[in-house]
Amino acid sequence: MVVILNKNPDPKRVADLTAWLESLHLEIHPTVGKMQTILGLVGDTSKVDIELIRALDIVQDVKRISQPYKEANRAFHPDNTVIKVGDATFGDGSCPLIAGPCSVESREQLLEVAQRVKAAGATLLRGGAFKPRSSPYSFQGLHADGIKLLLEAKKETGLPIVTELMDLSQLDLFADVDVIQIGARNMQNFELLRQVGHVDKPVLLKRGLANTLQELLMSAEYILAGGNHRVILCERGIRTFETATRNTLDLSAIPMLQEMTHLPVIVDPSHASGIARLVKPMAMAAAACGADGLMIEVHNDPAHAKCDGPQSLTPDAFDDVAAAVRQIHPLAYRA
Amino acid sequence: MVVILNKNPDPKRVADLTAWLESLHLEIHPTVGKMQTILGLVGDTSKVDIELIRALDIVQDVKRISQPYKEANRAFHPDNTVIKVGDATFGDGSCPLIAGPCSVESREQLLEVAQRVKAAGATLLRGGAFKPRSSPYSFQGLHADGIKLLLEAKKETGLPIVTELMDLSQLDLFADVDVIQIGARNMQNFELLRQVGHVDKPVLLKRGLANTLQELLMSAEYILAGGNHRVILCERGIRTFETATRNTLDLSAIPMLQEMTHLPVIVDPSHASGIARLVKPMAMAAAACGADGLMIEVHNDPAHAKCDGPQSLTPDAFDDVAAAVRQIHPLAYRA
Amino acid sequence: MVVILNKNPDPKRVADLTAWLESLHLEIHPTVGKMQTILGLVGDTSKVDIELIRALDIVQDVKRISQPYKEANRAFHPDNTVIKVGDATFGDGSCPLIAGPCSVESREQLLEVAQRVKAAGATLLRGGAFKPRSSPYSFQGLHADGIKLLLEAKKETGLPIVTELMDLSQLDLFADVDVIQIGARNMQNFELLRQVGHVDKPVLLKRGLANTLQELLMSAEYILAGGNHRVILCERGIRTFETATRNTLDLSAIPMLQEMTHLPVIVDPSHASGIARLVKPMAMAAAACGADGLMIEVHNDPAHAKCDGPQSLTPDAFDDVAAAVRQIHPLAYRA
Amino acid sequence: MVVILNKNPDPKRVADLTAWLESLHLEIHPTVGKMQTILGLVGDTSKVDIELIRALDIVQDVKRISQPYKEANRAFHPDNTVIKVGDATFGDGSCPLIAGPCSVESREQLLEVAQRVKAAGATLLRGGAFKPRSSPYSFQGLHADGIKLLLEAKKETGLPIVTELMDLSQLDLFADVDVIQIGARNMQNFELLRQVGHVDKPVLLKRGLANTLQELLMSAEYILAGGNHRVILCERGIRTFETATRNTLDLSAIPMLQEMTHLPVIVDPSHASGIARLVKPMAMAAAACGADGLMIEVHNDPAHAKCDGPQSLTPDAFDDVAAAVRQIHPLAYRA
Repeated sequence: MVVILNKNPDPKRVADLTAWLESLHLEIHPTVGKMQTILGLVGDTSKVDIELIRALDIVQDVKRISQPYKEANRAFHPDNTVIKVGDATFGDGSCPLIAGPCSVESREQLLEVAQRVKAAGATLLRGGAFKPRSSPYSFQGLHADGIKLLLEAKKETGLPIVTELMDLSQLDLFADVDVIQIGARNMQNFELLRQVGHVDKPVLLKRGLANTLQELLMSAEYILAGGNHRVILCERGIRTFETATRNTLDLSAIPMLQEMTHLPVIVDPSHASGIARLVKPMAMAAAACGADGLMIEVHNDPAHAKCDGPQSLTPDAFDDVAAAVRQIHPLAYRA
Repeated sequence: MVVILNKNPDPKRVADLTAWLESLHLEIHPTVGKMQTILGLVGDTSKVDIELIRALDIVQDVKRISQPYKEANRAFHPDNTVIKVGDATFGDGSCPLIAGPCSVESREQLLEVAQRVKAAGATLLRGGAFKPRSSPYSFQGLHADGIKLLLEAKKETGLPIVTELMDLSQLDLFADVDVIQIGARNMQNFELLRQVGHVDKPVLLKRGLANTLQELLMSAEYILAGGNHRVILCERGIRTFETATRNTLDLSAIPMLQEMTHLPVIVDPSHASGIARLVKPMAMAAAACGADGLMIEVHNDPAHAKCDGPQSLTPDAFDDVAAAVRQIHPLAYRA
Repeated sequence: MVVILNKNPDPKRVADLTAWLESLHLEIHPTVGKMQTILGLVGDTSKVDIELIRALDIVQDVKRISQPYKEANRAFHPDNTVIKVGDATFGDGSCPLIAGPCSVESREQLLEVAQRVKAAGATLLRGGAFKPRSSPYSFQGLHADGIKLLLEAKKETGLPIVTELMDLSQLDLFADVDVIQIGARNMQNFELLRQVGHVDKPVLLKRGLANTLQELLMSAEYILAGGNHRVILCERGIRTFETATRNTLDLSAIPMLQEMTHLPVIVDPSHASGIARLVKPMAMAAAACGADGLMIEVHNDPAHAKCDGPQSLTPDAFDDVAAAVRQIHPLAYRA
Repeated sequence: MVVILNKNPDPKRVADLTAWLESLHLEIHPTVGKMQTILGLVGDTSKVDIELIRALDIVQDVKRISQPYKEANRAFHPDNTVIKVGDATFGDGSCPLIAGPCSVESREQLLEVAQRVKAAGATLLRGGAFKPRSSPYSFQGLHADGIKLLLEAKKETGLPIVTELMDLSQLDLFADVDVIQIGARNMQNFELLRQVGHVDKPVLLKRGLANTLQELLMSAEYILAGGNHRVILCERGIRTFETATRNTLDLSAIPMLQEMTHLPVIVDPSHASGIARLVKPMAMAAAACGADGLMIEVHNDPAHAKCDGPQSLTPDAFDDVAAAVRQIHPLAYRA
């Protein structure tokens, strides 16, 4: 961490600051210039609140040199975190497929989709029981009944299930769920993060629509700091000025995150563009640049899906995407 | 709503779509072009799920002509919603000041700030008991003790209090709080919105960092649809590519929102820039273009604030801002 | 095009508008609703200035149904435009590699790089003679001498050359250049676009840092409308809130543009991230989702490059990228 | 400037780097930590190319502490630059109004508008002769004839004129123009900037749609470095995810720029929102937070303007805005 002081700071106040920083077990190395004085801080700065320093009158700016997350940081944990769920493994160089409908709508729909995606090679079933919808008038999911249907589909197909937790009040219903998903809109719902940090299940944490990679890792840090080390990160498109696609899929986030952290990084190409016909090329691109898995929406009747129909694949189209990804994967980028 | 069909759509499927739309009590007016056919839909489309239509094979695109929110829509509710809290009134053309520390830290701190901001003309006291912090290692607030101190400050000064609710599990503690704040990171926490829709208290709803005005109004719609009509909107800066300021304050949102909705719209210039010395000019600009109120962070000792010190004003600086706003307000823009 | 009129518009003014639209050879189909009247316009609206209509008092909004570009529009020109330059072909399903240094610095540098990239399979040589630099104090290129060196490298290796034109005053120097590049910062330099529309050479048009796909196609339209039909589009990363990478590479732009237009679409993974070690995974991802070519920066001594060293590959690293792309390409996505 | 080295760098290479930095007349102060070594550089770093250092193998990152612009930097030039044009003065605390049509369309139009805006208190006349339009099919301006009409209006009214230069080939026509405008799309047209750096006229430099304040000042630096010290900066809205307004007016840019630079900063509220009825509140807000001037589009018949009609005010509406700004200005923020 580097603290930039104002021109000609009061020596008394510099001494106070220096003493305080030393009390945080940091060593201070000053550099005195004509326009500025800078203090180089050496030691573990990951838990120092940069804002506290920035607020001081004598301070012009503070810049972090090292990252503000520690548990999620590859610099401190060089080996990949490998997470096994049923037959799927995340973080070992494979590319498991998570597939299923946006929302659970009925027994028939879910079982049909589950069987089809299993046959195509998916090793986890996704499906929403609690749906975050921007309009209060849109379908909000089947809630507890949706969870029951997911568990039934799991029993029927053997596929472990991933589903989204929107609020702590729903947590009891998740006892038999295999992977808890935290949605993009809840990426900075810190109470929720803190609580799933105490749960003994993998957590699939989606990047917020307007959150940086560093913020994503800070949110992962909440979970890891609580003792839950099984966190799977998911890139799902970010909000930009472009309107041709719903969001902009940031695929450079995959190799970048894999450098910053030891946690596995998967990609959701369905939500990113919001357009079914872009799912295949984007799934292929994600596999090519080294994604640790893919999460894809599949619906037996997209035209009558209760949510996100325009981005859902038919089971036939998913067969095609799964085959293409399988072909690309052996050639995929590895750091 | 306008539905654009693909070139040469199957007449059978167009008939199906038409029948379904008519079952939603919409009138359909087709326009047949060489490259496209468009269907103009007339009727109440505010509750139609645009995604359901967009998912159909024969549909190329759907465009809304009217807004997807109804309770929040000025077109349906032309008169301003006026909300009274203690001596403050939002939506009647006045510009009440909400002031106080980012987080409640101690009895002394809170009482000193409360007395100073009251003396300067503030009519509501703000202060965080539960703090959303991007790092799990930063100060997270005093929780229940923070609420107790706020209530004590209320008793002492007579100022009603505004404080942030981060999770439904905290709601019981808010019984004597005057205004519930929903923070920017929770603007699309739909469970939380739904529940405060059933509470008999005004809600101060902050715009998310990357949310459009329409999304803000859709979130307000969740609260209004639950029966709680006292919603105050708050612009607090949006995330852009610019890095000189923490966020970009979108002041055009004030007149724009006042046109779109009947709800009052206030501005938080402290969080927008993250820089204390920009609070005064931005508060003045917000007042000039017709803000229905201002929310400003004030700390008795910003250099030692436990959060957001760099953006907090001293009580003396707040005196100065309050005086400047009072001077500008009589000249402010009115639609 | 759909024109949305205000509630209860003056019938006289509606008649005026209708007459004017008819004079543009458009048919008008009105839909009268309680809250709004909408006019559906049928005919060639690609050259109608939407702003002229939006400015009318009686008009609330105008929405385009069809695109405002015609020459660049795949709807009117279904077959791929195929552009041959030396041994490279763009738009026929192949993925030619364009490689070379960011800026031409010396005879030795350029010839060494040219020979190495040719050996690795590149079929075009890139190199900047005129460099757009954000600081007036940075190296600005060798200008006419740079062009001379490029022509010498072309003679020596047989590789056709691509180089950036920054201003019309430089055009005479480009007589023997094979492909004229228009840089991202000049994507909306309309005078420059208009003039290269009259040149008998392929133009490589880079997407602006903050330009939509539609704006990119409108800029291509300037060139096509001038009579030059050989335009190659290039995605090179867009500006977003993310700071971990310099820009965000928008790979969904490839399949999306290939749907919107018949022009070939290539990718520059070097400028997108600004980080050399991300070039390989992003080049592989671009190839996988169907890019019609790649443009990659290669420098014989990146640590001493006069510009953009951090994003340049060594010749050895380029060998590795070229081999990986060659492996992926046969499996690449095709619409 | 702070250079962060990789863990355990090769001492020989560190010595090379140190020697090179010393050859640039910089002093080096190293700080050695367990995870990193940082070098603090003291001296004039404004002309050091940060990319050259970042490209070195042993370097992990480089962070600027001081700004990369010098001529435009208030730290080196504490006093306001004051620019006089006719009766208008920019930078002395006043708020001159620049007004006129988006594009010059006819003698009648321009003279009528010029007389009306002069009567309302404007002290400069704006009008476009060369118009940057995103479509090649839109009206592109009257070119040389437009300049002639502007000069005629100047003669008639005594108002100095501001008009946009799009390309160097047009420069000869600007001999009698009072202020040369560089448009947002040309903010990084570095050849154009360099040339107007040699012209003896004030330059009005508009911020690019997606350019940071630092980039705006780097572009100003091009002009200043050429010897032309009369540069007026103009905030005109930036591109964000919001679609309710065309761009997002960044008013915090005014006090922020006034802190960073000594150059005057004006605001164009017409282009920012693209909506005529937002011009008044935004003009008032800009005046309130200390803008050094305003540029506003006025048309005698906005409904039939050849460009940007929806954002143009009628002369009557401009009278109203000018009066409101005049009232607010004496109360405006001053740093």
